[in-house]
Amino acid sequence: MINAIAHATRGEGRHVLDVDSDVDHNRSVITIVGEPAMVAVGIDHLVEEAVTRIDLTKHHGEHPRMGAVDVIPFIPIHNVSMKDCIALSRQVGKTIAEKYEIPVYLYEESATNETRQNLATIRKGEFEGFFEKVKKPEWKPDFGTAKVHPTAGVTAIGARQFLVAYNINLETTDLITAKKIAAAVRGSSGGLHDVKALAFALKERNIVQISMNLTNFKKTPILRVFEMVKNEAEHHGISVLDSEIVGVVPREAVYAVASTVLRMEKFSRMSVLEERIEDVLRNKH
Amino acid sequence: MINAIAHATRGEGRHVLDVDSDVDHNRSVITIVGEPAMVAVGIDHLVEEAVTRIDLTKHHGEHPRMGAVDVIPFIPIHNVSMKDCIALSRQVGKTIAEKYEIPVYLYEESATNETRQNLATIRKGEFEGFFEKVKKPEWKPDFGTAKVHPTAGVTAIGARQFLVAYNINLETTDLITAKKIAAAVRGSSGGLHDVKALAFALKERNIVQISMNLTNFKKTPILRVFEMVKNEAEHHGISVLDSEIVGVVPREAVYAVASTVLRMEKFSRMSVLEERIEDVLRNKH
Repeated sequence: MINAIAHATRGEGRHVLDVDSDVDHNRSVITIVGEPAMVAVGIDHLVEEAVTRIDLTKHHGEHPRMGAVDVIPFIPIHNVSMKDCIALSRQVGKTIAEKYEIPVYLYEESATNETRQNLATIRKGEFEGFFEKVKKPEWKPDFGTAKVHPTAGVTAIGARQFLVAYNINLETTDLITAKKIAAAVRGSSGGLHDVKALAFALKERNIVQISMNLTNFKKTPILRVFEMVKNEAEHHGISVLDSEIVGVVPREAVYAVASTVLRMEKFSRMSVLEERIEDVLRNKH
Repeated sequence: MINAIAHATRGEGRHVLDVDSDVDHNRSVITIVGEPAMVAVGIDHLVEEAVTRIDLTKHHGEHPRMGAVDVIPFIPIHNVSMKDCIALSRQVGKTIAEKYEIPVYLYEESATNETRQNLATIRKGEFEGFFEKVKKPEWKPDFGTAKVHPTAGVTAIGARQFLVAYNINLETTDLITAKKIAAAVRGSSGGLHDVKALAFALKERNIVQISMNLTNFKKTPILRVFEMVKNEAEHHGISVLDSEIVGVVPREAVYAVASTVLRMEKFSRMSVLEERIEDVLRNKH
């Protein structure tokens, strides 16, 4: 199903960079890169396909969700400003609300008030809870009417910084301890300011996972998060099995791990052969 | 002086990627990338300039050397085979020997016998010792006559795999212990097979340095070398201050450090945002 949805997204001026599905989460992330207007067209096709194929009344998974298209983040990568992304998110939000009758909430940089900045706050109650939540005056959608789509729910749309989705798997089945570790690292419960964290049981692998979003990988590097989770786990006698990037990670974040571990004070992208060659070829043309 | 030499190297079809000078070593590495024939022209200009400017009878430095142009390695990077590099090294060697009257030794993949594969074996005795060494039948140059250039010495030329020049600085002035650490990690004295290592005093910084060449960074990753030196140093109560890449390092080697430390079993270049974008743009054009 997810391949059909990803396929519908494709077209002129945009590219599907990544499709990442998680069985336990029952959730997929499709990453699209391209020119703003063409990306908007792709998202329109994606929503159309997803609304046809996904029925949230029959959907179950470890990851909280409120919509068939749960969230659409716009991230400035190259030659695009955050302001451009905010404008694009508003335009796409309006279209989706009107065309598919899905209530839309603007979040993060696009949020219309402080409460709506945090996606988790918007999503609280999930699909099932939204039929009541949407009627509350403080949860009036930014686009569309106070009527949840019967199978596709509601959608959050917003501009934001690049978010590193990062999971650490622990060699244990002890979900209660895993939840403590997630709480220790999570900003909202006293941990690292720019880290969101949840603990899940990965039943297929018989382990638990700390599933995180690093919302500012420059201020809070991946390595620091890894080491904090590793230390917390060790205090409970639990080992880190492995870790994984969900989707993609900016190259800069990977370089930072290596240069920190090797204590390379002078390391920069200019220390990398291919970066030099790319610069040289760019100047040549 | 090194800037003038690097400048002479520049021209059509080739690019100076990096110029790296070390005061204590009194040694510079110029990295050139380009089409084989055009790189050969650049090297000719480089040798001409270096022979004019560098007088080894007045040269002192921590790093062993036998020539004003001490060594010219050819490394296949893209669309060039090792065989191409061997052919190029022979062509350049012949030109330099004839034009500048510098005896040339072919080494590594270009070596004409097993003894000459190892640069350190060729260089033994250094500039000062070569006036006698060159006369020995087993040290007859591969190109040129058995007559050392009075100020420019002799030159080694050869094709080889990418070599990572990697230094680790130790927070000590104890050169004797540093030499023990270098011996522990060095392949020729029982350490890691593809690591060459020397210990130097960095007098300017009042520390010592383990200066290494990793001749096969795929079989012997940088992180393993770092950790081995770190452990050996700790056994002597010495800390690792920092480390550094001399010149440039292939991106793959940097990714490997990060993915190993974070235990990312599934990490590949496809986990990196920019790699995906580059692939997409490459297929587009």
